[in-house]
Amino acid sequence: MYTLYYSPGSASMLVHLLLLEIGAPHELRRVDLDAGAQRDPEYLRLNPGGVVPTLIVDGQPRWETAALALLLVERHTEANLAPPPSSPARGEYLQWVLYLANSLQPAFRWWFYPEAGGAEAEVVLAAARRRIEAGWDRLDAHLGGGGPYLLGAEVSLADLYATMLMRWSRKMPRPATEWPHLAALARRVKARPSWRRLYAIEGLTEWT
Amino acid sequence: MYTLYYSPGSASMLVHLLLLEIGAPHELRRVDLDAGAQRDPEYLRLNPGGVVPTLIVDGQPRWETAALALLLVERHTEANLAPPPSSPARGEYLQWVLYLANSLQPAFRWWFYPEAGGAEAEVVLAAARRRIEAGWDRLDAHLGGGGPYLLGAEVSLADLYATMLMRWSRKMPRPATEWPHLAALARRVKARPSWRRLYAIEGLTEWT
Repeated sequence: MYTLYYSPGSASMLVHLLLLEIGAPHELRRVDLDAGAQRDPEYLRLNPGGVVPTLIVDGQPRWETAALALLLVERHTEANLAPPPSSPARGEYLQWVLYLANSLQPAFRWWFYPEAGGAEAEVVLAAARRRIEAGWDRLDAHLGGGGPYLLGAEVSLADLYATMLMRWSRKMPRPATEWPHLAALARRVKARPSWRRLYAIEGLTEWT
Repeated sequence: MYTLYYSPGSASMLVHLLLLEIGAPHELRRVDLDAGAQRDPEYLRLNPGGVVPTLIVDGQPRWETAALALLLVERHTEANLAPPPSSPARGEYLQWVLYLANSLQPAFRWWFYPEAGGAEAEVVLAAARRRIEAGWDRLDAHLGGGGPYLLGAEVSLADLYATMLMRWSRKMPRPATEWPHLAALARRVKARPSWRRLYAIEGLTEWT
């Protein structure tokens, strides 16, 4: 049994989606970010960074979205969301998951929280946008040379992760779905029963 | 046999350090970043991002520093640089490795390459510095509550990774070693034979 502390549409979405894909029993606890619940002392004891998600695993609070995703996928190999460690595709799997974690997701952090005001914020936002769009260029070119999934014929965690990040770009000047291979990937992931259930449970409405 | 494309003191340092820790046979190919060798068409075929490291694994070029590190550690379990997947500490291991990959290392990318000039660069640099120092606060507090390593009594990939990043801060206004628990961790990692061999092979001189 897992317990997920989440907020609809936030980075916790990937962990929630994986719990649904895997079919793992779990409880959900919503953290009201607008009310500042992520800064409650009780929540900070679970997650000292004051962010979602937190996942309780074997009684221990764990965090970092990509780490939780890698952990769930390796604990539930029956869901086939990663090549096994012995597979030649393992390096490519880790490469794309870490590319998303290391390059694309952090750029969104600057986009949503520029940590500056006025003209300074504009500078940070412009730099974040360049990095995000360079990421779409990279992923789209890779999919164009293979696909339809990031690892080729088989869906993996990397595709679910990329689709969550694509959703975050929906209000940007140039959303990820303007890149044709990325748009095709998003359509495939959005057609999965897990994605539809997640939308229903989290009450999401945009980017359907 | 692995082949590592590297540049001294860059992010490839972590992968090189792991190859030495593991004792895995490997060839080194230096990429002369000052001469722009990372943009040679031949290198871009291996690494479309034009960065180091690239690691040739079973004949395939792979990249993303943290992904290569996770891959090497899981392929060479005998080096004991990670708790096994079945261990209760696995979640904490992934959490810290991904924290370094997702929060701290990307902030250094902004610090070293602000992608802006003049006053705009200053804005980005100030924001990057705040994020990096917040990372040291976080890691130092965690080590202060346990330690001496990030997972407690046993060294892991997370400590080697954190020490490489600490080295990158050596010319910053407030280097990581001004945080006492981080300074103690750096001393331990720098005393390892692998670290000393790496310095000799890469010809590194600073931060000894």
